Amino acid sequence: MSHTIQDKTKLLARVRRLRGQVDAIERALVAEAECGEVMHLVAAVRGAIGGLSHELIEDHLRSHVLDVEADEVARERAAAELLSVLRTYVK
Amino acid sequence: MSHTIQDKTKLLARVRRLRGQVDAIERALVAEAECGEVMHLVAAVRGAIGGLSHELIEDHLRSHVLDVEADEVARERAAAELLSVLRTYVK
Amino acid sequence: MSHTIQDKTKLLARVRRLRGQVDAIERALVAEAECGEVMHLVAAVRGAIGGLSHELIEDHLRSHVLDVEADEVARERAAAELLSVLRTYVK
Amino acid sequence: MSHTIQDKTKLLARVRRLRGQVDAIERALVAEAECGEVMHLVAAVRGAIGGLSHELIEDHLRSHVLDVEADEVARERAAAELLSVLRTYVK
Repeated sequence: MSHTIQDKTKLLARVRRLRGQVDAIERALVAEAECGEVMHLVAAVRGAIGGLSHELIEDHLRSHVLDVEADEVARERAAAELLSVLRTYVK
Repeated sequence: MSHTIQDKTKLLARVRRLRGQVDAIERALVAEAECGEVMHLVAAVRGAIGGLSHELIEDHLRSHVLDVEADEVARERAAAELLSVLRTYVK
Repeated sequence: MSHTIQDKTKLLARVRRLRGQVDAIERALVAEAECGEVMHLVAAVRGAIGGLSHELIEDHLRSHVLDVEADEVARERAAAELLSVLRTYVK
Repeated sequence: MSHTIQDKTKLLARVRRLRGQVDAIERALVAEAECGEVMHLVAAVRGAIGGLSHELIEDHLRSHVLDVEADEVARERAAAELLSVLRTYVK
């Protein structure tokens, strides 16, 4: 990572909310909630994952791909990492 | 839900693995792991969510939309619920 | 297909609009438009594809999976086809 | 764009294949092909759109976000454009 402390605090808060949402899916399954309700809880988690991922990508672009203090090779490596992650989203 | 006990056991196992993967993201952030590593952990959770969602959709189709013991209105309502969930995936 | 004529007319109109959008991407590339503009045109086509796909899925559910005049085997086969298509969206 | 001629030629070839795939959907609808077949043709177009989009994103990253001859402001603007496009994929 090596991003700012502020980024880290925001990301951790997001991940903890995400765990709370995963716990809610577990509780709904145990309580034998309606199928439609469980499917919507899962779709909401997917949305939260997308939001987390977009924030990580934004931080990575700003802190590594655009890093004016890094050399060209380091910036190209950071861009290659980004493209590798994007293969799972842009398809 | 009201699906089989067997479905429920499989789904709960999936959700618990998912929580383990979310915990791994938290640990990676706390340990200030490489940015690329965190992004790949998040992409893996998204894949796991997709798998869970596909399984729920399959169970819902089999148990509700195709339910030969339900009446036509109940099957149509189950199909409408499925379409509502699919709006978040098929877009 | 074997859906209604009304469905077919609507779907054909969607596909023709889609081709118009693909032609717009080609013109933008030939005219060496801004990169950001081309990327947004492509993202819009993806949205149009999602809309077309959702409509096909809805028609398929209504006309085949819920078909009260079909027998159970035909409805199950239609549901299996739907699940096979959903593998490319829900993942 | 302002990318290389080589990029442009490859991208145009992709867009023309894509139009051929869209034409195949139209022909399938007109011929009243099986519903499942049409849905799979549409899913294939979505995959082709994803491939085109990934290639555009890669070219944009290399030619604009990493452009060593551009100033910092231009590189940041190119990164902001990329993030704006990614909002439609990473969600």
